Amino acid sequence: MAVLVRYGMVGGGSGAFIGQVHRNAIAIDPRVRLVAGAFSTHADKNNAVADLYSLDNDRVYSSYQEMAEKESQRPDGIDFVSITTPNSTHYDVAKCFLEHGIHVVCEKPLCFTVEQAEELVRLTKEKNLIFAVTYTYPGYAMCKVMKEMIAEGKIGKIAAVNAEYVQDWLLDELSSGDYSPNLSVWRTDPAKSGISNCVGDIGTHIEHTVHYLTGLNIKRLCATVNRFGKPLDLNANMLVEYEGGINGAYWCSQIAAGKLNGLAVRIYGSEGSLEWEQHYPDYVRYTPKGGATQLLSRGTGYITEKAASVSRLPSGHPEGLTMAFANIYKNVVDALVKLKAGGTVEPGEFDYATVEDGLAGVKFVKAVVESGDHDSRWVNL
Amino acid sequence: MAVLVRYGMVGGGSGAFIGQVHRNAIAIDPRVRLVAGAFSTHADKNNAVADLYSLDNDRVYSSYQEMAEKESQRPDGIDFVSITTPNSTHYDVAKCFLEHGIHVVCEKPLCFTVEQAEELVRLTKEKNLIFAVTYTYPGYAMCKVMKEMIAEGKIGKIAAVNAEYVQDWLLDELSSGDYSPNLSVWRTDPAKSGISNCVGDIGTHIEHTVHYLTGLNIKRLCATVNRFGKPLDLNANMLVEYEGGINGAYWCSQIAAGKLNGLAVRIYGSEGSLEWEQHYPDYVRYTPKGGATQLLSRGTGYITEKAASVSRLPSGHPEGLTMAFANIYKNVVDALVKLKAGGTVEPGEFDYATVEDGLAGVKFVKAVVESGDHDSRWVNL
Amino acid sequence: MAVLVRYGMVGGGSGAFIGQVHRNAIAIDPRVRLVAGAFSTHADKNNAVADLYSLDNDRVYSSYQEMAEKESQRPDGIDFVSITTPNSTHYDVAKCFLEHGIHVVCEKPLCFTVEQAEELVRLTKEKNLIFAVTYTYPGYAMCKVMKEMIAEGKIGKIAAVNAEYVQDWLLDELSSGDYSPNLSVWRTDPAKSGISNCVGDIGTHIEHTVHYLTGLNIKRLCATVNRFGKPLDLNANMLVEYEGGINGAYWCSQIAAGKLNGLAVRIYGSEGSLEWEQHYPDYVRYTPKGGATQLLSRGTGYITEKAASVSRLPSGHPEGLTMAFANIYKNVVDALVKLKAGGTVEPGEFDYATVEDGLAGVKFVKAVVESGDHDSRWVNL
Amino acid sequence: MAVLVRYGMVGGGSGAFIGQVHRNAIAIDPRVRLVAGAFSTHADKNNAVADLYSLDNDRVYSSYQEMAEKESQRPDGIDFVSITTPNSTHYDVAKCFLEHGIHVVCEKPLCFTVEQAEELVRLTKEKNLIFAVTYTYPGYAMCKVMKEMIAEGKIGKIAAVNAEYVQDWLLDELSSGDYSPNLSVWRTDPAKSGISNCVGDIGTHIEHTVHYLTGLNIKRLCATVNRFGKPLDLNANMLVEYEGGINGAYWCSQIAAGKLNGLAVRIYGSEGSLEWEQHYPDYVRYTPKGGATQLLSRGTGYITEKAASVSRLPSGHPEGLTMAFANIYKNVVDALVKLKAGGTVEPGEFDYATVEDGLAGVKFVKAVVESGDHDSRWVNL
Repeated sequence: MAVLVRYGMVGGGSGAFIGQVHRNAIAIDPRVRLVAGAFSTHADKNNAVADLYSLDNDRVYSSYQEMAEKESQRPDGIDFVSITTPNSTHYDVAKCFLEHGIHVVCEKPLCFTVEQAEELVRLTKEKNLIFAVTYTYPGYAMCKVMKEMIAEGKIGKIAAVNAEYVQDWLLDELSSGDYSPNLSVWRTDPAKSGISNCVGDIGTHIEHTVHYLTGLNIKRLCATVNRFGKPLDLNANMLVEYEGGINGAYWCSQIAAGKLNGLAVRIYGSEGSLEWEQHYPDYVRYTPKGGATQLLSRGTGYITEKAASVSRLPSGHPEGLTMAFANIYKNVVDALVKLKAGGTVEPGEFDYATVEDGLAGVKFVKAVVESGDHDSRWVNL
Repeated sequence: MAVLVRYGMVGGGSGAFIGQVHRNAIAIDPRVRLVAGAFSTHADKNNAVADLYSLDNDRVYSSYQEMAEKESQRPDGIDFVSITTPNSTHYDVAKCFLEHGIHVVCEKPLCFTVEQAEELVRLTKEKNLIFAVTYTYPGYAMCKVMKEMIAEGKIGKIAAVNAEYVQDWLLDELSSGDYSPNLSVWRTDPAKSGISNCVGDIGTHIEHTVHYLTGLNIKRLCATVNRFGKPLDLNANMLVEYEGGINGAYWCSQIAAGKLNGLAVRIYGSEGSLEWEQHYPDYVRYTPKGGATQLLSRGTGYITEKAASVSRLPSGHPEGLTMAFANIYKNVVDALVKLKAGGTVEPGEFDYATVEDGLAGVKFVKAVVESGDHDSRWVNL
Repeated sequence: MAVLVRYGMVGGGSGAFIGQVHRNAIAIDPRVRLVAGAFSTHADKNNAVADLYSLDNDRVYSSYQEMAEKESQRPDGIDFVSITTPNSTHYDVAKCFLEHGIHVVCEKPLCFTVEQAEELVRLTKEKNLIFAVTYTYPGYAMCKVMKEMIAEGKIGKIAAVNAEYVQDWLLDELSSGDYSPNLSVWRTDPAKSGISNCVGDIGTHIEHTVHYLTGLNIKRLCATVNRFGKPLDLNANMLVEYEGGINGAYWCSQIAAGKLNGLAVRIYGSEGSLEWEQHYPDYVRYTPKGGATQLLSRGTGYITEKAASVSRLPSGHPEGLTMAFANIYKNVVDALVKLKAGGTVEPGEFDYATVEDGLAGVKFVKAVVESGDHDSRWVNL
Repeated sequence: MAVLVRYGMVGGGSGAFIGQVHRNAIAIDPRVRLVAGAFSTHADKNNAVADLYSLDNDRVYSSYQEMAEKESQRPDGIDFVSITTPNSTHYDVAKCFLEHGIHVVCEKPLCFTVEQAEELVRLTKEKNLIFAVTYTYPGYAMCKVMKEMIAEGKIGKIAAVNAEYVQDWLLDELSSGDYSPNLSVWRTDPAKSGISNCVGDIGTHIEHTVHYLTGLNIKRLCATVNRFGKPLDLNANMLVEYEGGINGAYWCSQIAAGKLNGLAVRIYGSEGSLEWEQHYPDYVRYTPKGGATQLLSRGTGYITEKAASVSRLPSGHPEGLTMAFANIYKNVVDALVKLKAGGTVEPGEFDYATVEDGLAGVKFVKAVVESGDHDSRWVNL
């Protein structure tokens, strides 16, 4: 009998989008089972999910605190918790489970302040736990291909980075006279989203994805941040300086008509370039210096073996976002299986974003907002 | 407690690609559980899957016959079987489970001969069972959008169809002097693939997808079939005449360098056109007569509600092939849940390809091969 | 002082589209000058062009016959005539100029019947003249790149061809109840267009472009031809067999909503493939067997020198259709300059479509219509 | 007899690329004739062009000063001069012809310093002459379509701009140890290119194209400028603030592998967006708020009449860069014809970039370099 990894979820009640995506991504891994949850503070939404997954009644909790406490005491308690609640609660929930000695997988942004993030980093180390942040996009197989190609020197020394994450789902904000609570309210409400909407929600994906691919750390940045009369940002442009004096530029927006989920990362080096667009995640445009642009595809013979290992379908059969999430969870579960079998897990041994990566994201958001609020001055990270 | 639908699988042993895709697609539906299997005639491959899914020992079978018999006698026996064995065995396996009163989901092509297919149709009706054939591509949300748009008259009366399914994974066959057993051997071996390789394997997807989208039935066709000195076809072109005198052209190939899994369907009517390419399944190109071409996207506000109901992610978040499979299984499971709750299922009530669609595919293959072997004469279906 | 090549034009009166394109294409070559014309049977349209180009009054003719006679007698008479009249008159005009010993450049289709075409071939040989047919598309630099790559064996032995030329400008014909004279009337009027509209107008471009690129000659073909109740064809599909038993499929249409000028040619061989689409003429998709698809661009270092010689702009600066026409004329003028300098021109020495290529096009149209009218039987060319 | 507009050229000797493009673009307009030139200081290169265009011997000049003087004294002297010399000489040449009362068309960048540019503006006004700067890209028909759509409010109030112009032809500079004279030497040599290479050469095209499309003027900007150890910039990123507080971001580079001539302009407003990429100049991506992205094409029925007036080919027949140049010259010649017929030309009456636009470009370059050299501080324009 294979090792069974048990997990519980906080958030993701009936009707919540991202919680279901997490459950779907985990579900394809037969080593893992959902056994507990505090899916919603609304009892009906909580029970609806519990019923759907046939959970035992005594493991459906009305509060995450209760869940952390009771599960930590059971011999068959959850191995990890998946946190998919609104951003404002990530810190409290994650802290609680860490304190009860339970591994954590948490949606991004990790939390609202650098102090909170540092506390979570500290606690994770102290408790010697796994803490993964679900920065989705490095989960795609082709991001892993790019990372390897860059590490192997295929594009030489990096000379320029241009990346963007643009959407249009808050475009209506531009024409609404006053700040009005609408579907997007929690996104643009500082009480629920912290100091930033757009930069926190999607700008952080740029920051992390570029870091994941290139290993570059941002030294400082300057930014223009556009709120268009709303409490929080809807659009921002950044000039970035990485360690080593390399420059890049980032753009994030939620008011760019026609842009659905437009994360595009383009890395230019002395020997070639790599370009990737999330809308077509199975493909990478690779141009070696002096040669023609090549359209690399997941699942082909010319792709590295390591990348192939996180690829579940043959080339030309699109994998999609759920599989990117599944790859993150697969790596977390690989680590947990090793731990449960008595092994140890070294930093960087398994490929998922850590609580330190989450901290980097929080610092990034703080710096962008600070620069935007101070006439685009350079802010060190 | 929600209704639990139990299933078993024949085929899909450790290392088999398509069986795992089926299991993944089913896994995201918490109403269903894998409880039995005859995954492989190799005991180790059989047990590896059983272990991975923590199956009870007594429900891991060394033969599908034993599985059909024993499961049909258990009170908690499987509700349906998923058949993912090589094509040559579909008929025998499906027949066996039907005879034991177990619902069937079977990979395409349904079987090798029209007689076999007609027997499965007969048996399915006699036993009043559900028989779904996993023609994958109509499972994509945007195919459902196109089907609805065509039904609503958005492109008017259909005037021309052009469709192709092109790959390159058998390109090496062109340069290998003699027929040599290689990775693809069962595909090009008549004993394992029947009268056709390429037309059966992928040509049938063209036939079914066009039929699904448009409702058009092929009246007759003529074809050139290229075997390049091998036992079975690697490339074929078809002129098609649908009922009503409309014409179309199909091309399928497995020797087209650079083509990964290039199913492309293009439908032209008196009032507009629709074009879809499997590599980018979340998008449809729609041109209303006299207007600009529009890039329709899954998950947007302008897409029909019915299509939205089979869409699991927001626009711009690619869904991928596994979700297309998941949609097929979702519809089958919806039907089974209704049956288990004492309801009845009407023909066409749930959206999946039936055993009759499987029969149409077998007739199509037969006609193409016959035309190709008789100097491209018209062959009626 | 450089040699001056003088030309006259028949057709292309004020308001005529294609005549102006020819004049523009020629104009960029400073070796050539427009000195005579019978642009229109309408005196005002005739004079408007003559005035625009500052022609001498005595070289503006009211009939092509008069022009042929008078120009052939002048010491500074035209070296060649460019014929851009409606298709129905090509034969008579071309014949007349040939008989007067004047070189001919003629729009396609060459003429209406095989007999006419053979007469033009005969006369061209007898008079030892240059006769170029303006099949536009091989004029593009990247078509020359593809031709060279194929000749060099870059894609190995050709195994499959798929080509189409699709437009939508006659889509209204599908909904017009009866045959009605409209803007397109001469296209769909047998008196002006001969036995075919769509196949003659654009299908011939497929035939010639594939022949140009590959060297393949069609041995026989079968076709479905759709007239939708009109006198002439609006859509046609063809199965093609080349010499050597290779198969291909062609589709031409003028009722395909959203298709502007969609000539797309795709050639698949044992060692790779080449794909080209006229909408983006500066690029070719090249896939070597087992490798990634490459986007080759005109003007780059990795493109052959011969192709570079017909390329006027650096890579990334689109050249467009006028330059394709210009390349045809450049090659014709190169030949004329050589002749005028006392040299001789060998068959195939200069790169333009000949009267024999025009004859091949007429045979192609005849075969398609004949097959379409006889239940898609094979017709030998 | 139509009015004849005579022109001369300075620069564009045999082998020079851009001069030939200008001559080709002008040549398709039968109202204009090349009658004089100082194409090169190398007599052979000068004579080669003169011979090609059959110029009179006495109008082939060895210096532009002589040409300006003598042509200004002839009754049949040139109406305008086209200046296509290296950037360092634009100022002197343009000033000379203005002083002799001859209209000027000049390549960009206009000159090196704001003082020079202001002198040219002053002189142009004083002499009441036409001075056009050949900013190429607004010459494309689809740029005119976008300009009109924006002016008509199709995308509402502009909220964000993102534009880039990226190439890779100086990528080798990154790996060459020291500054070495190579093919690109005059580009990266301050003596020949002024204070900037990349920003001056292509960054100015971004600045002008965005201004042309939107009417927005840059109020201030901050920038990172990368020289990679060379004397002049090879890459630069800019944050831009327009009048009215709107923000945008620009990126220009000549070291981005795989980028050929990648000018891409994207404008986002409260009611929709427009996106255009120079590689495919006949198409514009237009997304109305809440609707699907539309691919607008030149030459179609839904495009404005005004845009149609600068469109020479039907939709789907690519026009290319030479036609963009031709549109600029057409508008200049329209103005000159009106002047020669005794009319007057109002500012903005004809659609070409003026000497004031040239001045704006020089100011832009100065600001970018200044910001880059002062730790990316905001610099007002």
